[in-house]
Amino acid sequence: VTAPVAVGVDVGGTKLLALAVDADGEVVGRQRLTTPRADADALVEALVEAASELASGVPVGVGVAGIVTREGDLRYAPNLQLQDVALGRRLEDELGVRAAVRNDVTVALHGEWQVGAGRGSDDVVMVTLGTGVGGAVVADGRLIEGAHGLGGEIGHIPVRDGGRPCPCGNRGCLEAYASGTAVAALARERLEDGDEHSALRELDEIDGKAVTLAAIDDDPLALEVLRESGYWLGVGLVALVNIFDPEVVLIGGGAATLSAPIVLPEAEGIVAERILGADHRDPPPVRRAALGDDAGAIGAALLARDLAGA
Amino acid sequence: VTAPVAVGVDVGGTKLLALAVDADGEVVGRQRLTTPRADADALVEALVEAASELASGVPVGVGVAGIVTREGDLRYAPNLQLQDVALGRRLEDELGVRAAVRNDVTVALHGEWQVGAGRGSDDVVMVTLGTGVGGAVVADGRLIEGAHGLGGEIGHIPVRDGGRPCPCGNRGCLEAYASGTAVAALARERLEDGDEHSALRELDEIDGKAVTLAAIDDDPLALEVLRESGYWLGVGLVALVNIFDPEVVLIGGGAATLSAPIVLPEAEGIVAERILGADHRDPPPVRRAALGDDAGAIGAALLARDLAGA
Repeated sequence: VTAPVAVGVDVGGTKLLALAVDADGEVVGRQRLTTPRADADALVEALVEAASELASGVPVGVGVAGIVTREGDLRYAPNLQLQDVALGRRLEDELGVRAAVRNDVTVALHGEWQVGAGRGSDDVVMVTLGTGVGGAVVADGRLIEGAHGLGGEIGHIPVRDGGRPCPCGNRGCLEAYASGTAVAALARERLEDGDEHSALRELDEIDGKAVTLAAIDDDPLALEVLRESGYWLGVGLVALVNIFDPEVVLIGGGAATLSAPIVLPEAEGIVAERILGADHRDPPPVRRAALGDDAGAIGAALLARDLAGA
Repeated sequence: VTAPVAVGVDVGGTKLLALAVDADGEVVGRQRLTTPRADADALVEALVEAASELASGVPVGVGVAGIVTREGDLRYAPNLQLQDVALGRRLEDELGVRAAVRNDVTVALHGEWQVGAGRGSDDVVMVTLGTGVGGAVVADGRLIEGAHGLGGEIGHIPVRDGGRPCPCGNRGCLEAYASGTAVAALARERLEDGDEHSALRELDEIDGKAVTLAAIDDDPLALEVLRESGYWLGVGLVALVNIFDPEVVLIGGGAATLSAPIVLPEAEGIVAERILGADHRDPPPVRRAALGDDAGAIGAALLARDLAGA
């Protein structure tokens, strides 16, 4: 086992995954803890514990779902029931090393870009499909962070004016069509609105995974729902490709693990048809991310290393 | 008059404006020529003539409406009826100086960012309202150009699925609602569809300017049309602010000159209401660009100087 150069932690709503990586981005150590919620002190403590177990004296990177400023302040993290926590500064104080705290998708993209499916491209758009829809962009070799670290909120670009309600309070956001939650809701609505035959009628509870499994099993209603979801993902990607002209679009996140073979071709077709100058150019490929559940922690570690100038 | 450090040329569909600028971006020389169309040789000749009149031995920047690659190749310029012209290389060969050729809005933003309304901000989104809708973005101090120089096509982000037809061949693009052309078309459609009183009924031909003048004169139909246009501009800006988290949004272009006091507050209201985390943050101001018709030529000159490392 080679020496770790950094530790990265992906703080999920229930579990916290910490990885030590070597200079090539290979994982050389792994820790998993339960995520403390609604308690900033306990979160800091858990992060310190996980990082200390894996290595000492190396930079620590952390990815958290929510709004995180460039300075590493957790502005708003609904999954953790936390807001306004100076997480980066507190970790630096406790650990005595450089800490980088960023949005979870930002660090996942950093990982995919450095050692995953975006390797070798300097212009990469990433969208993650999960409970919500996240996003991040590398443009000309640099992460888009925005003036206050609030950039990259791809899940909340409007794709359908006056459309479905989104957890953010608006209507018609990409997230309201492309998240796992949205897929489940779309299926439930169709089941209620019609009497179309579907295996989903037999289930007590319908989540995104159940819809995806039914679609893989050729259930027509489930297939239509996933294609609708892919359509709106495609509409969102048209905006992103017109804005960023990426070499590749990466789709990550748990909800895409099984649904990708149905959702991605649908989205890719819309992109190929509708981007500006579609007749005069090749559309970027829409590809699955490669690092799976490790992407966030690996990316957080590599980002911390890069920012520390190591 | 101080010495020019670069020459910039804004190639419009009918006129070509060439400016020499000094080290502070002040205009120290000015030339105006008719734009040759559908003739690449004549265009190169006109650019060489305009540049040579103003200065010699300094970098030359050029802004052209259309798709321009990073290498300065004019991929597709519908206004000039040209495609696939290696304009940058040809200018360098003829003039013996460094040449930078870019999209017209890209250079206009470079000008506004360096010496105009975006000065001092490293994160600026610019949208220009004219015959079409153009756009450009500076993120973290760098112009978004994309992997092939095709980025920044803000006019063609979808704002209304299945909406109005756009000159690009798709439907529901921002351009189909926010351009001067779109404003005129929206007014004509309303006049045809109803019998609402409007001063516009007296006119033989309705263009965007006529609608704006009527709106300024409190014509209710014209006001509604401009507010609708501002609404969709706002929807497009919600996407851009969520993606880029800019410090300021600049609106330029001829069609905004008069309509800004009606269109901008409408768009700004939508942004303030709908960006992610609207309750927890200040929306960026939506402001008029400052350099007017000179923005493109000034920006082209400064970009050429910057790229030449002067």
